[in-house]
Amino acid sequence: MYTPAPELQLDMSLVIPVLRRFIKREVEKAGLKGALVGVSGGVDSACVAALAASALGPANVTGMWLPYHDAGDRIYAEQVRDAFGIQLREVSIAAMADAYLGRMTKVDDTRRGNVCARMRMVVLFDHSRLLKAMVCGTSNKTEFLLGYFTLFGDGACSIAPLADLYKGQVYQLAAALGVPPEIIARAPTAGLWPGQTDEQELGLSYAEVDPYLYYLVERGETWGELKRRGFSPAFQRRVVGYINRNLFKRKVPVLARVTGKTITKRLEMPEVF
Amino acid sequence: MYTPAPELQLDMSLVIPVLRRFIKREVEKAGLKGALVGVSGGVDSACVAALAASALGPANVTGMWLPYHDAGDRIYAEQVRDAFGIQLREVSIAAMADAYLGRMTKVDDTRRGNVCARMRMVVLFDHSRLLKAMVCGTSNKTEFLLGYFTLFGDGACSIAPLADLYKGQVYQLAAALGVPPEIIARAPTAGLWPGQTDEQELGLSYAEVDPYLYYLVERGETWGELKRRGFSPAFQRRVVGYINRNLFKRKVPVLARVTGKTITKRLEMPEVF
Repeated sequence: MYTPAPELQLDMSLVIPVLRRFIKREVEKAGLKGALVGVSGGVDSACVAALAASALGPANVTGMWLPYHDAGDRIYAEQVRDAFGIQLREVSIAAMADAYLGRMTKVDDTRRGNVCARMRMVVLFDHSRLLKAMVCGTSNKTEFLLGYFTLFGDGACSIAPLADLYKGQVYQLAAALGVPPEIIARAPTAGLWPGQTDEQELGLSYAEVDPYLYYLVERGETWGELKRRGFSPAFQRRVVGYINRNLFKRKVPVLARVTGKTITKRLEMPEVF
Repeated sequence: MYTPAPELQLDMSLVIPVLRRFIKREVEKAGLKGALVGVSGGVDSACVAALAASALGPANVTGMWLPYHDAGDRIYAEQVRDAFGIQLREVSIAAMADAYLGRMTKVDDTRRGNVCARMRMVVLFDHSRLLKAMVCGTSNKTEFLLGYFTLFGDGACSIAPLADLYKGQVYQLAAALGVPPEIIARAPTAGLWPGQTDEQELGLSYAEVDPYLYYLVERGETWGELKRRGFSPAFQRRVVGYINRNLFKRKVPVLARVTGKTITKRLEMPEVF
């Protein structure tokens, strides 16, 4: 974990009720009562579970623990359950994933990790229907901007409560929500393979990339201004490379246009009367 | 199949080159050479395979035949391969899907169908990485408007070449592209369970719903005008019910907003120089 610079800190006494109302409103709009969160043992999913529990009541929130083979981190998922009083369900994705991967050759860590992330989506959305509960995603603003998620895997959810908070702001939120300190202290990992950490895989530290994104996105600073703040051109190219290379993940599918009335995301009809 | 009313017919000598350029441009923009299509044996995927073959060359197009248990329709997938010269690969999703479904109780046709649709997505996107080929979706405008697809299942793709064509227009396109008549003649089915047909499940016929959607969406007619055309209020409520109930499938995830700079789909950065 790290403490964000003062200009990135948010007043959590304002943010928490906003996010609580967001979850409650979206769940009710969909005609549902509960929420589902894939609980990995990390700080993001712990925050989403805590927010959902306070928005909907802990009895209406189910944390899903979805291990591949190594189930060693279940203890952290149990800490989330105990801290916020939510339900916890375990479904191993090992047999599903291996039924596919076992027939493939040239399976590297990335392919295996993506298959696992998508298998977790399959389980979550099937349980969404079964339990009449909304799938809450756990991606934060840093991950979302960098495109650091699996398309149709952990990127697939019905609502994204942390989508507007940088990783450092999630740490702030976690402390304010009472997430267990052992969880806050863990090195962030997408859990794609044993020993993986986000910062190692990205080649970037959250403590450096968060303020960079803040000055770039929220404050609209130029490359020159950012350089004067001490961000090297190589670092800037690396971060912007992630943003633009993974931009497609936020845009798909691209729709072919043939008529003047291509169906957009928002096209909606008034009721028939 | 059915022949669309004259006002719905499109000039396929114009539409085909537009869609061919669309596919070629999007594949090149992504730095890829090939395309992947889940070939079900139906008319939509046959059209997408044919368009991709003529856009990229048949050797760069792979049709994926992804049966659950009943592999009886493989003959139609082979007809598509033979008609357009594409590659055909088979990966059964039975073991993957059953590894999950076998542990669940209360599995109905819908849950099984959704799990299968999402398992096909897992196979397609893993092969997308393996073959450096773009996943082309097969949903048409009628399905897209009604929300008649599985979220993150057959709805998940990188590009959607048929998204702006109603089902009847896809039949027109199929004839113009030389899709085998046996495939055009088959009853449309999402293949969610044996014997399922779209029209039975929707409780709507494409021959009726296509013109209704055309007058509603493209021509912006009111409920009263549509009633005078002979569409009953019960029919109208049914169709609009589908549109609005399934609208969420085009909108997710809903992003929480906390700052003034929530990351939208389009936010993109200029290159660092």
